Amino acid sequence: MTANSYVHGYSAGEAKRLGDQARTLTDLLHHDTRYPAGCRVLEAGCGTGAQTVILAKNSPNAEIVSIDISPESVRRAEERAKAEGIKNVKFQAADLFSLPFAPGSFDHVFVCFVLEHLPDPGRALCTLRTLVKPGGTITVIEGDHGSAYFHPDSTAARRAIRCLVDLQKEAGGNALIGRELYPLLVSAGFSAVQVSPRMVYVDASRPALVEGFTKQTFTAMVAGVRDEAIKKGMMTPAEWERGIEDLYRTCGPDGVFCYTFFKAVGTV
Amino acid sequence: MTANSYVHGYSAGEAKRLGDQARTLTDLLHHDTRYPAGCRVLEAGCGTGAQTVILAKNSPNAEIVSIDISPESVRRAEERAKAEGIKNVKFQAADLFSLPFAPGSFDHVFVCFVLEHLPDPGRALCTLRTLVKPGGTITVIEGDHGSAYFHPDSTAARRAIRCLVDLQKEAGGNALIGRELYPLLVSAGFSAVQVSPRMVYVDASRPALVEGFTKQTFTAMVAGVRDEAIKKGMMTPAEWERGIEDLYRTCGPDGVFCYTFFKAVGTV
Repeated sequence: MTANSYVHGYSAGEAKRLGDQARTLTDLLHHDTRYPAGCRVLEAGCGTGAQTVILAKNSPNAEIVSIDISPESVRRAEERAKAEGIKNVKFQAADLFSLPFAPGSFDHVFVCFVLEHLPDPGRALCTLRTLVKPGGTITVIEGDHGSAYFHPDSTAARRAIRCLVDLQKEAGGNALIGRELYPLLVSAGFSAVQVSPRMVYVDASRPALVEGFTKQTFTAMVAGVRDEAIKKGMMTPAEWERGIEDLYRTCGPDGVFCYTFFKAVGTV
Repeated sequence: MTANSYVHGYSAGEAKRLGDQARTLTDLLHHDTRYPAGCRVLEAGCGTGAQTVILAKNSPNAEIVSIDISPESVRRAEERAKAEGIKNVKFQAADLFSLPFAPGSFDHVFVCFVLEHLPDPGRALCTLRTLVKPGGTITVIEGDHGSAYFHPDSTAARRAIRCLVDLQKEAGGNALIGRELYPLLVSAGFSAVQVSPRMVYVDASRPALVEGFTKQTFTAMVAGVRDEAIKKGMMTPAEWERGIEDLYRTCGPDGVFCYTFFKAVGTV
């Protein structure tokens, strides 16, 4: 992955989106990841640090090393961690495929929302496995845009989501990778692989999720590829606006929105 | 709903399929439904009793009345309950829309895999609501075939599932009803409606679910509409066989299958 292939872009709006997402989904995705005192953890692909701050707070006595290929993202992650008073993370700009660490340097590896952007996630997992001590673990969290469905159903909304999936594929990624975590980790040589789905179910009785997930996370993410999708002739502007409108429509008093993240843990 | 519109048919194989399904999914769907001693519960649409026996065992001191529109199904449900030694259920053949019970006759109503087959599930819910005493509850469990996705992905498999959805729609039902339970119950006048999704995640590390759910429940159910789908020209026989083969393919060592049931509870 090269820095400029990141399909969601690097805007301030995108950083806010990731921050909102991180807060709303913190418990669902992170509550069961706690590393013991003194162990060394590599966070591979920290981006602007949205997950890093959660990881660091949940394991305050672990020593975390967070890397990302984008020096600009690393700089912002460092700022964010500082602002949150986090002291147990060292940041470093580095390429996942040529990391400056000796084999077995870490007790555990943590990878969140990264594999979906890589042309060869299997190779990334094999590389990361060499860095983990025997008995250590890898934890991987990814979404799956094919797990999104909603009421009222809408062809235009489904087509808009499909644009994001196709654009991410053109950029070398896979927005449907969540469902594949089990075979990916097994193929990469991890053992005792356990995958648990984390479904986000949103209806009008859960207003924080309507706002924080359906609107500000998922629909905002789809809306973010508008110009590219239209420029490439994937949808007309009118079709696109209809699709986004229909996604917002699922936030109404009778609307429902479903999405599933997948969390996998494997052992070395 | 008329008896002969039941899209899954009434064969012995279908009865076995429902029995297998009930056993595999018992905990996931039923563990949190326990009715107190002495209360009266109506099970509306008991079919051949696959859910009835679970319901009755989980609430051994509740008085359950189980009805179904098909006298033949009621007879078989009665046999099944007798074979399982169940004594707290009375069976009765009756139409959901003209039930022989006075308003407020029941403390609770339980409806499982029934609304998906009704042309007007909203009217059914309104009718059932009148039978519940103030403070009583309705519990509804339904699947949603649009929640099925898998690895490896397959256009033919998705088309075969779509045939089942379309055939069920032609018969007046809605195989995508799971996601709609919240607005349906709210519209029918229930309050404090709470929906919880029950996702079935299946990979090779969960062989009982590979066998009991992906193969014997979901794929068997899709395979059951083969002749009708082909007769109506929805798919060619070759396309159909490919679709079913691809669903079985998700049972391989690197396969994954996902499906979500929805359980809703509302108060009168």
